[in-house]
Amino acid sequence: MVERVRAGDVRAAARLMRNLDDGIPGSRAVLRELFLRPGHAFVLGLTGPPGAGKSSLTDRLIAYHRKAGRTVGVVAVDPTSPFTGGAILGDRVRMQDHALDPGVFIRSLATRGNLGGLSRATSDVVTVLDAMGKDVILVETVGVGQDEVEIAGLAHSVVVVSIPGMGDEVQAIKAGVLEIADVFAVNKADREGADRTVKDLQMMLDLRRSTATRGGLDHDSEHRMTRTGAEDPHEAGWWEPPIVKTIATQDVGVVELAEAVERHRAHLERTGERKLREVARARATFLALLRDRLMQGALARLAEREGHLDELAARIADRSADPYELADELAGRL
Amino acid sequence: MVERVRAGDVRAAARLMRNLDDGIPGSRAVLRELFLRPGHAFVLGLTGPPGAGKSSLTDRLIAYHRKAGRTVGVVAVDPTSPFTGGAILGDRVRMQDHALDPGVFIRSLATRGNLGGLSRATSDVVTVLDAMGKDVILVETVGVGQDEVEIAGLAHSVVVVSIPGMGDEVQAIKAGVLEIADVFAVNKADREGADRTVKDLQMMLDLRRSTATRGGLDHDSEHRMTRTGAEDPHEAGWWEPPIVKTIATQDVGVVELAEAVERHRAHLERTGERKLREVARARATFLALLRDRLMQGALARLAEREGHLDELAARIADRSADPYELADELAGRL
Repeated sequence: MVERVRAGDVRAAARLMRNLDDGIPGSRAVLRELFLRPGHAFVLGLTGPPGAGKSSLTDRLIAYHRKAGRTVGVVAVDPTSPFTGGAILGDRVRMQDHALDPGVFIRSLATRGNLGGLSRATSDVVTVLDAMGKDVILVETVGVGQDEVEIAGLAHSVVVVSIPGMGDEVQAIKAGVLEIADVFAVNKADREGADRTVKDLQMMLDLRRSTATRGGLDHDSEHRMTRTGAEDPHEAGWWEPPIVKTIATQDVGVVELAEAVERHRAHLERTGERKLREVARARATFLALLRDRLMQGALARLAEREGHLDELAARIADRSADPYELADELAGRL
Repeated sequence: MVERVRAGDVRAAARLMRNLDDGIPGSRAVLRELFLRPGHAFVLGLTGPPGAGKSSLTDRLIAYHRKAGRTVGVVAVDPTSPFTGGAILGDRVRMQDHALDPGVFIRSLATRGNLGGLSRATSDVVTVLDAMGKDVILVETVGVGQDEVEIAGLAHSVVVVSIPGMGDEVQAIKAGVLEIADVFAVNKADREGADRTVKDLQMMLDLRRSTATRGGLDHDSEHRMTRTGAEDPHEAGWWEPPIVKTIATQDVGVVELAEAVERHRAHLERTGERKLREVARARATFLALLRDRLMQGALARLAEREGHLDELAARIADRSADPYELADELAGRL
């Protein structure tokens, strides 16, 4: 199985991913082998709110890279219903244009329940796609929550997609995306307010740069001015996230977006930051894995002793079981 | 401390929350005491994408409940930078109107890093506010990711806030919000496209209801029609989420929204579903707690043996450490 996946065998890779999802014994060992001898993929994250057109952009980026002769893997992460366990794939259908292209492998992920396995599952798929020898891996996530920030941690570069007309654009910043964005795409740029959105983003970036120039993480306003003017962030290997206007449905701005990402990739290589990103990626991979394993182990043990989780929850609800004691006790075994 | 919080002492509650954040010994024991003898709060979640105006709606709902003589607690959850650990509070400032009102207690939460403590921290604050005797607790979360779904699990009722002009509204549904919504608010309803948004949401709800009527979770299309017509979902205690148009900044539709939530609350009581919600809340509380404890324990143990997490990540990045082995070993101790 390891060798077949490594040779790029699509059926073997698909089978492995299913086996990992279903927790089939042995699939973990295969994944581990693949992880320990990685490929060369560049992992690009795309994140942003629902309705921003991330799937359309992903679709266009696939076409762009295919045209350049690169093989592409895609992980589309769909937060899903906590009740039905099913994902509504909707516009994923569009991507089926690429379904017959052997150079493209697309995997949609849905969580089953909300026990926190989403980032681990994403990390697994990225590992498999990388081992298959894909040149580029696109990881598309919905939203701006904590989970998405974690998934973004699996990428070398992150494109944050926003759209005009979301009202106060500072809102998007508030959600912490500024810190994870390497490139901004303002999609649906033919809509009213696109220039305003670009301007707002630029203002936030300017503010951040001037703060960084004046002394990094020093947020004490009294001392802010003391280091003014000395450093030029550009000289110090500073990356200024470009803002690219796109209209994915009309294939407008997609080349510019891909080129902006390419410049970031070159920046990572030139400054040695790529290595730091690899460490950050390893950290994200490990934490996702650890959390998943711990929860699986703890819940299995709990089921043995306390019965089904739902029964335990009922006892906690009427205060005849103490969740703090139980959690402490289980964690205490470490 | 337990008694002071229970008596509604604001300073004691604020101190306890800070102590919990900082992991001060003894604060957990206090929290546990509070949890085991709960108050009577009704917990209302508000969730939706950035820019939907959740903070403004929260602000108006506070005013509504205060006018009705109810005390209010607020937890505003801000996903934050994974790099700086700081939250940009932005429009939280607006809520400071209530800062001098002793009947209102507002707590903004930011994660420090992305180790998954957000839902646990939220759960802690809800427990404290409930113990203080608050009548209503509003939990405001940004986004539609997995984490937010989990936080929504801490609420009795959930309002999903959307806005017109987000393009294809089916996008919002895709992200799994349909399943967690008890009430929909279409905010900024003076914008173009508000009626379209309402119609789209209504269509999704109709589709869901007809599917449920025809046999619940049976998604096999061949068998779908066999149970048609027999059940009326309304008779069987079915809750049809109302859709309320609001303009929070002008205080339009806020009373209607609050009344829709009140009807849902009455529905929960009448059908006995409130008890089920309490069990679901207990489940969410426990899982958040368990995950947090497990990760804390595992990372502490890891630090002892393997050094700092960042050094370990560097070794994983160059494949001289095996994350699968490490995670399995740590989880295996359970």
